[in-house]
Amino acid sequence: MVPKQALDLDQIRQAMASTNDLFNKEVFEKRNFAAFDNIYTSDARILPPGVPMISGREAIRNFWSDLITSSDATSAALESVEVTQAGDGVVEIGNATIDFKAAPTLDCKYVVYWREENGRWKWHVDIWNRNS
Amino acid sequence: MVPKQALDLDQIRQAMASTNDLFNKEVFEKRNFAAFDNIYTSDARILPPGVPMISGREAIRNFWSDLITSSDATSAALESVEVTQAGDGVVEIGNATIDFKAAPTLDCKYVVYWREENGRWKWHVDIWNRNS
Repeated sequence: MVPKQALDLDQIRQAMASTNDLFNKEVFEKRNFAAFDNIYTSDARILPPGVPMISGREAIRNFWSDLITSSDATSAALESVEVTQAGDGVVEIGNATIDFKAAPTLDCKYVVYWREENGRWKWHVDIWNRNS
Repeated sequence: MVPKQALDLDQIRQAMASTNDLFNKEVFEKRNFAAFDNIYTSDARILPPGVPMISGREAIRNFWSDLITSSDATSAALESVEVTQAGDGVVEIGNATIDFKAAPTLDCKYVVYWREENGRWKWHVDIWNRNS
């Protein structure tokens, strides 16, 4: 039996960057909400400010599509600050800058617990808040 | 060489409950801010709503002691909602109920990434926000 190969953090970082890119380019810029299938695990949970926890990708997709549409958000730039391997997953601390068509930029920070699902690295637990 | 024993999640849960208890009984009820040595890892990070990320136990202790004193907070009841082993650490989702001497109760949710430090389970990354 071949031992399971150790996770290569550089490869994971690249996979993470590609997922984070989907959030900005597909979801925010193109409003392609089907892209959430490649961003969140099917049983992911998000903990947004101001509302209770939301469980499951379908409910998460509804949350984001409502929020992005109603707020007229135009981009969400994510920047990893710290990436820590945690068993089969990764704990990421990051900064997010959200732009809107007609409102000031929002500076947020977040923690995401990443898991691999069907060969893609996805957000399994996602919580954020504002910097000011 | 004896192989490292697998982490026993029940034992970890007990250790976590004892750390969470310190936060309520020592920090909030007794204002014993030295207890933070047994709550946060020395290089922990917290991501509180409304301010940028804070790094290191000393800065974290200052943040909490200022906040608890100035807001006259009297208790912080923490309840684990989901506990997931993640390598040498644990990812916890939870609810927090904060009471004050002269202000309405605050309902929050949080994610903590736990690590073991000097034989104690402690908060290594801690982020939260309000439910409403």
